Amino acid sequence: MLEHWIDGPTKSAIADFVAHAVTDIAPEDRVAVFDNDGTLWCEKPAYIQLDFVVRRLAEKAAGDPALRSQQPYRAAAEGDLAWFGGAITKHYRGDDSDLELLAVAGLSLHVSMTVDEYAARVAEFFAHAEHPTLGRPYRECTYAPMVSLLRHLEAHHFTCYVVSGGGRDFMRPVTGALYGIPPERVIGSAQGLSFDGTGDLVIQPTLDVFDDGPEKPVQIWSRIGRRPIVAVGNSNGDDEMLRYCRGLRLLVHHDDADREFAYTAGAERALEHAHAQGWTVISMRDDWATVFGA
Amino acid sequence: MLEHWIDGPTKSAIADFVAHAVTDIAPEDRVAVFDNDGTLWCEKPAYIQLDFVVRRLAEKAAGDPALRSQQPYRAAAEGDLAWFGGAITKHYRGDDSDLELLAVAGLSLHVSMTVDEYAARVAEFFAHAEHPTLGRPYRECTYAPMVSLLRHLEAHHFTCYVVSGGGRDFMRPVTGALYGIPPERVIGSAQGLSFDGTGDLVIQPTLDVFDDGPEKPVQIWSRIGRRPIVAVGNSNGDDEMLRYCRGLRLLVHHDDADREFAYTAGAERALEHAHAQGWTVISMRDDWATVFGA
Repeated sequence: MLEHWIDGPTKSAIADFVAHAVTDIAPEDRVAVFDNDGTLWCEKPAYIQLDFVVRRLAEKAAGDPALRSQQPYRAAAEGDLAWFGGAITKHYRGDDSDLELLAVAGLSLHVSMTVDEYAARVAEFFAHAEHPTLGRPYRECTYAPMVSLLRHLEAHHFTCYVVSGGGRDFMRPVTGALYGIPPERVIGSAQGLSFDGTGDLVIQPTLDVFDDGPEKPVQIWSRIGRRPIVAVGNSNGDDEMLRYCRGLRLLVHHDDADREFAYTAGAERALEHAHAQGWTVISMRDDWATVFGA
Repeated sequence: MLEHWIDGPTKSAIADFVAHAVTDIAPEDRVAVFDNDGTLWCEKPAYIQLDFVVRRLAEKAAGDPALRSQQPYRAAAEGDLAWFGGAITKHYRGDDSDLELLAVAGLSLHVSMTVDEYAARVAEFFAHAEHPTLGRPYRECTYAPMVSLLRHLEAHHFTCYVVSGGGRDFMRPVTGALYGIPPERVIGSAQGLSFDGTGDLVIQPTLDVFDDGPEKPVQIWSRIGRRPIVAVGNSNGDDEMLRYCRGLRLLVHHDDADREFAYTAGAERALEHAHAQGWTVISMRDDWATVFGA
């Protein structure tokens, strides 16, 4: 039970809440929602999906030299990852010029591909792609204590969902193998789709859902129609989802530079609310016996 | 097994397909999708949700006399149901003027209500509202053979979803009792929602999803992430969902004026495709031993 968690107040808070839920809450209302990036798998030095996008941009630039003079293709082709980080930094300073270039290019990458073709590309990426600094494939960058928390909740008849700002269809091809979460329980951002004449669903160059911040509770209701009693996140983008939850709110604090990364940037507001409202803060360093497992 | 179905080619087609699926298709891929209006419950002489809306418009007009001179409030207050039918008829002739008045008024009815408050209103409606001609409460206007088909599929480890042009949050409060379908398996049209400062989800005056026609396969993918192997519908709005399905396609033909209604209006294209592509047409008159059960 709760393998990979170190005995202490965090583990006890989880175990106590689950024990209480089992006697007080009907199984169908035992809904648990988990953010993905930084909560179930590693999000540093960059989102895994951003690496996927950068590789695809580089491939596209390689096949079309005219693109190579334009951003973000040039940065992708030259392996200039700082440009991508800079686009986000500029965004926080109120300058969206680079982020918009990236969004338009990113949304164009898989246009007119079917959802099945896109899923095959994602599966291929996860079969081979490695984390840039941790020395392991991305598919082994999931947090072992979180997977054991998923299993602990399921053993007590909770239904667990992933609720991520990342792409719904980027996660679905691997959530079964990585987390035991089937596609119908993956909620995330999504490009527009259209039903074409041949009976397939084809990707459009539009953003249909950006599942972050206040959109997370909206998507939870849209998809599930129940209010979660367990919510787990790590950043400001999870703040509203945690506030929407009535029950156990868990916030992963990345304070483990030795085994993973130590950072609070992007989590300031969530950490503040956690302290003010008594949410349970998970210290990666103190609460987890291992981060990634064997 | 398949109670309320008369022995014959339709019942055999269903039983044979299910028997084949059980040996050939993994349980997690046994996904079945059901339209609601005209497929699981009666949609004549008007959609049940339209009756709900008209009653709410009349209530609002009663509380605000200034509204009573305007459509659609006047028609609602005067019980002039022909006006509402006329709005739809005009729409098919290319004149959306009345339908737009109805849409704006309908979308405004529950603005700033929480999703829980709305659910309570819907539950209250179904506790009392009666069908105008069938002499039974709306909650008893579901088709008994369809409920037994849901149970037959579940007994063979299918997962069944409602996929309706009707309101997702209008159906959810009753799908459990009427069909044994929980809220997370109800897909439908939806108003915009926003997460408010107090931590609740509040209805907005916008239409977020209109789950009809080509939007049905898109919503099925968005919500489930799997392609159905059973699809059941009755109208042109189900045509794309039936074409998206790989497996058993069932189309309810309303040909039973004695026990329910007889009509093909709004189902012309779907019936044509059914005949051209060998979908299974369910004759309400010939295939169902009872329509509404005891």
